[in-house]
Amino acid sequence: MTITPPSLLSLSINSAILHLSSFSDLSPLPDHILIDLFLRTLKAGKLNEKILKLFVASGDEKLLSLIRELNINPVISPVLPTRNIKDNDVDIVIGALQSDLTSFMNAWKPMFSRYHLIIVKDPELKEDLKIPDGFDAQIFTKADMDKAVGPSLTSQLFSGYSCRYYGYLVSNKKYVISIDDDCIPAKDDKGFQVDAVAQHLFNLAAPATPLFFNTLYDPFCKGADFVRGYPFSMREGVPCALSCGLWLNLADLDAPTQALKPEQRNTRYVDAVLTVPNKALMPLSGINIGFNRELLGPALFPGLKLTKEGKVRWETMEDVFSGMCAKVVCDHLKLGVKTGLPYVWREERGDAVQSLKKDWEGMKLMEDAIPFFESIKLPAEAVNAKECMLELAKLVKERFGAEKNSVLTQAADGMIEWVKLWKKVVVPASN
Amino acid sequence: MTITPPSLLSLSINSAILHLSSFSDLSPLPDHILIDLFLRTLKAGKLNEKILKLFVASGDEKLLSLIRELNINPVISPVLPTRNIKDNDVDIVIGALQSDLTSFMNAWKPMFSRYHLIIVKDPELKEDLKIPDGFDAQIFTKADMDKAVGPSLTSQLFSGYSCRYYGYLVSNKKYVISIDDDCIPAKDDKGFQVDAVAQHLFNLAAPATPLFFNTLYDPFCKGADFVRGYPFSMREGVPCALSCGLWLNLADLDAPTQALKPEQRNTRYVDAVLTVPNKALMPLSGINIGFNRELLGPALFPGLKLTKEGKVRWETMEDVFSGMCAKVVCDHLKLGVKTGLPYVWREERGDAVQSLKKDWEGMKLMEDAIPFFESIKLPAEAVNAKECMLELAKLVKERFGAEKNSVLTQAADGMIEWVKLWKKVVVPASN
Repeated sequence: MTITPPSLLSLSINSAILHLSSFSDLSPLPDHILIDLFLRTLKAGKLNEKILKLFVASGDEKLLSLIRELNINPVISPVLPTRNIKDNDVDIVIGALQSDLTSFMNAWKPMFSRYHLIIVKDPELKEDLKIPDGFDAQIFTKADMDKAVGPSLTSQLFSGYSCRYYGYLVSNKKYVISIDDDCIPAKDDKGFQVDAVAQHLFNLAAPATPLFFNTLYDPFCKGADFVRGYPFSMREGVPCALSCGLWLNLADLDAPTQALKPEQRNTRYVDAVLTVPNKALMPLSGINIGFNRELLGPALFPGLKLTKEGKVRWETMEDVFSGMCAKVVCDHLKLGVKTGLPYVWREERGDAVQSLKKDWEGMKLMEDAIPFFESIKLPAEAVNAKECMLELAKLVKERFGAEKNSVLTQAADGMIEWVKLWKKVVVPASN
Repeated sequence: MTITPPSLLSLSINSAILHLSSFSDLSPLPDHILIDLFLRTLKAGKLNEKILKLFVASGDEKLLSLIRELNINPVISPVLPTRNIKDNDVDIVIGALQSDLTSFMNAWKPMFSRYHLIIVKDPELKEDLKIPDGFDAQIFTKADMDKAVGPSLTSQLFSGYSCRYYGYLVSNKKYVISIDDDCIPAKDDKGFQVDAVAQHLFNLAAPATPLFFNTLYDPFCKGADFVRGYPFSMREGVPCALSCGLWLNLADLDAPTQALKPEQRNTRYVDAVLTVPNKALMPLSGINIGFNRELLGPALFPGLKLTKEGKVRWETMEDVFSGMCAKVVCDHLKLGVKTGLPYVWREERGDAVQSLKKDWEGMKLMEDAIPFFESIKLPAEAVNAKECMLELAKLVKERFGAEKNSVLTQAADGMIEWVKLWKKVVVPASN
């Protein structure tokens, strides 16, 4: 038996593995050495997140595709720092529509575990919650809600998908991130896992530009800027109050569209964030959002409930209505709303064809609500989200008050109750 | 010398090469056979556009990266058909700011050669144009302009980057596409060349949705749709009159930004088209646009000229001003403006620091123009682009008439002349 003596290259690689953490750039290495080094690092059990980043930063295409093939998923944070946001300025609020959150929470562990979590159990959900260890999670149930606001308001404002709004109310943080419990982290167009929390916080920390449209999207993203013709006086932007993320796989369609195109999946990863222009209305989806609770909290209103609404997203309109309230409040208060990144991956839940068998009021609601929201002008005296919501409630009643039992009139009553709760229950943020 | 008999596999591949055009799907083939087949097809000189598409459609990652490495560029057309637009409904208008168009035109040959081209030479450019063979190109020079509109209007309206507008005027097609002569085709995020003409035509043929924002971008793109909450009554959309494309490499920045960040390049390929919402203003770039000339032609106005304006994009504002005119006209006439895809690749031209040494009026212009454009309301009687432009000219004079020699007052005079030309010169489209 002959033993081939190790080559000089092989010895160098072995030595490099031991000192990888002191390297800052691997890009000068040729393909085959880089790949050899990577495989041996992996075999030696030395691949941690920092080392992986070092390899990924080499930008070597062959190596990157190998990493993808091996299904190694680093968590990619947005490039720009969000250093001005401290971890304890953030609450992650999860509405639990299902009792077993194990796989959901484990999927999000790399992004969620450093933050305080508020988990609000749908008051109509009977089974006990199953939540894995390793999180700083505070749990709220029907009993807590009943005690704080009474059973009647609990049922009016916080059932089904609306349970999360209870978390918005009792949080005392500046920022809230909320993601539906049937979503897992998405991968970006290069196959790497997206840190949705970091992207929302980046969106919220950077100014928004609602007063003039920038054709290169968010001018504060790395490599982007304001284009020629963008007025200099508007480049400072306004505070961003709301960040609406998107969805890969199952898109957020309504029941008719979902039933009509059961096979349709969203596969297009659009690498952009943009500010929705002033005065433009959009359908907010509550699936994947972040917001500045201090600026906008009371404007995210949970009380719009359709008759026969079930526990599937496409039957609900609470978030869309809440989004229109939030958008007119933002326009009035000179705050910005962004949409685009981050994506989450939406898993299937529910049967759209079953939903179609119900009368869906959502369609009629929007036909009534949109001309109304487009027409309103809030008075200059309303200078914060609470006051804006009270004015909005007044306007809704003026317009729809004659229609007895309309969901909109009921919503107006709910809005007044909601603002009362914000005045009463909320502990002001400590900073 | 021994001859190895060919393997059965090898014989099969040789036979397959001869019959490739009758295959419709290569995806079941394993990697190595597919790559062998591709290389032998290439060697046999049998690789044409159709066969290349067949290989690309296999979706095989290794093959695709080989195709990229060999720098074989198929021209990728947008997935949705634009069959309702006939080739002779389209003019491609090129403003020639440089005399030698050889490399520009050759780069665009796969996209341009099937259409009629109008090439308009900057009246201030002295040298003769050099244009390669193989195009259906009609050329207009200062002599043609002087004859048609007189030397004074030629110099007022059509010098520098504005020369292309002469082409807009004398075209008699329904659609016009115009691309700056320092741009070449861009590649998409998968490395394939983009057919900017086809994408503009697709944007123009599909409806626009300015009345409500769709968070999944253009709902008419393949795989996209209207999201939950999008009002059904607005899903039909409105005709799209203007398609604004974007730029990779050198972005369209103003002189100060360009000078401040000389190394900045736009590398972010955002795979989206969106409608700019009603009432939102944006800075149109004339670098890469398509428009419905029948609906919007007279609203694309060339006459805004800054003092000391040179022959580099970042010193000009003619297109940005023209875009604001076009946007308010579109909003008034219930037409849509889209922005996003297609990208073009912008090459370098000019020295931004030199530009900075001039007084740049562009900044002040926008500060004056934007509040004005935001405030105006065109009268209901104005029912087409010509009438809208005359009303707009009137409003500009009312607002800025007292400021002698302001570029805006001069622009208002130009707008009236421009509409006169559209009434006089234009031959109506034959269909």
